[in-house]
Amino acid sequence: MSNEPASDRVRVRRLAERGSYDQQTVHAILDEALVAHVGIAGDRGPVVLPMTFGRAADTLYLHGAVGNDLLVQADGADVCVTVTLLDGLVIARSAFHHSMNYRSVVVRGPARRVADPDELELALRSITDRVGVGRYDDCRRPDPSEIRKTRVMAVPLTEVSAKVRTGGPVDDEADRDLDHWAGVVPLVTRRGPVEPAADLPAGIPTPPYL
Amino acid sequence: MSNEPASDRVRVRRLAERGSYDQQTVHAILDEALVAHVGIAGDRGPVVLPMTFGRAADTLYLHGAVGNDLLVQADGADVCVTVTLLDGLVIARSAFHHSMNYRSVVVRGPARRVADPDELELALRSITDRVGVGRYDDCRRPDPSEIRKTRVMAVPLTEVSAKVRTGGPVDDEADRDLDHWAGVVPLVTRRGPVEPAADLPAGIPTPPYL
Repeated sequence: MSNEPASDRVRVRRLAERGSYDQQTVHAILDEALVAHVGIAGDRGPVVLPMTFGRAADTLYLHGAVGNDLLVQADGADVCVTVTLLDGLVIARSAFHHSMNYRSVVVRGPARRVADPDELELALRSITDRVGVGRYDDCRRPDPSEIRKTRVMAVPLTEVSAKVRTGGPVDDEADRDLDHWAGVVPLVTRRGPVEPAADLPAGIPTPPYL
Repeated sequence: MSNEPASDRVRVRRLAERGSYDQQTVHAILDEALVAHVGIAGDRGPVVLPMTFGRAADTLYLHGAVGNDLLVQADGADVCVTVTLLDGLVIARSAFHHSMNYRSVVVRGPARRVADPDELELALRSITDRVGVGRYDDCRRPDPSEIRKTRVMAVPLTEVSAKVRTGGPVDDEADRDLDHWAGVVPLVTRRGPVEPAADLPAGIPTPPYL
């Protein structure tokens, strides 16, 4: 990836200076996020659903029940997978210049069903390890019946763009003397103290990756 | 709204017991969220972009630059607006039963451009007040030139569904004695201490609604 988009349809047009096509930037945003919003041009209109996801090298992985309508329709079709991290509310003197600080990634392209057993495992590992790297090796892995019940889809991280806003409000010069407060309200997503399952046997410690 | 969906295409099919069509549930999720993922079946494939939004009664409002490609294409067309709040990572003994706790809303239907001045103000107020109710009355309101630069769209909260997962992992009976940790890692999004703009004059206090 470079500083130019792989296709015109992922070019950031609005406030283009916030756009990036740099692989490291894209991967860093994807790897911090826990949920993606997956869109298709469905047979009854556009549909967007939240889904967990994973990444391995230059491929993004999605999964769901084998009969998942969105993923069935996505097979061989164009999808758009969007990931957004919110970093702050940007409060300007004018309503017009209110904004948000965020880091987002948009991936467009064809989704492909994964059938190869090695790639299936890679995909499920990348999705499961999203909660903490090491989890896949520290739980009961999927058995053949569970694999049959699961649809795994791959989306190439080729047509992809990132968009990032940082910093304080940018007010019009004429507004800077108004006595309205201006600044940023940071937004922070944290993992709280873990809650062990009610039926967890005594003596099983919380794994370090959680 | 009732316990039945307004249309079949917003019926929650997968794990249908998690679905709800109750107005209060839908509004509460929308009102807690700061970002929506808006999808269209675009002229070059599906597109999903993160956007701020507002709600007034049974209407959801979006806005952007007047030339915003997604909102231009959305005018009179079907959109899907999806809002997701993440509450926790659900860690099961088996990879298969890993899940997330979340509250999400899916809205489908036609987007309509708002032109009426009163509705425009209602919409911009609902979007601006998302950072804290009272902000719209405590900032410089949009002037006619800013209004001309802004495209405001309304989506009716008619075809709408909520989906909610709560609680701990649900492992297979046969897995409950495995010595893998199981439980929930709560996710909490907080507003951090405010950061006043570098050029904020002294003596302007942080407004209580922030």
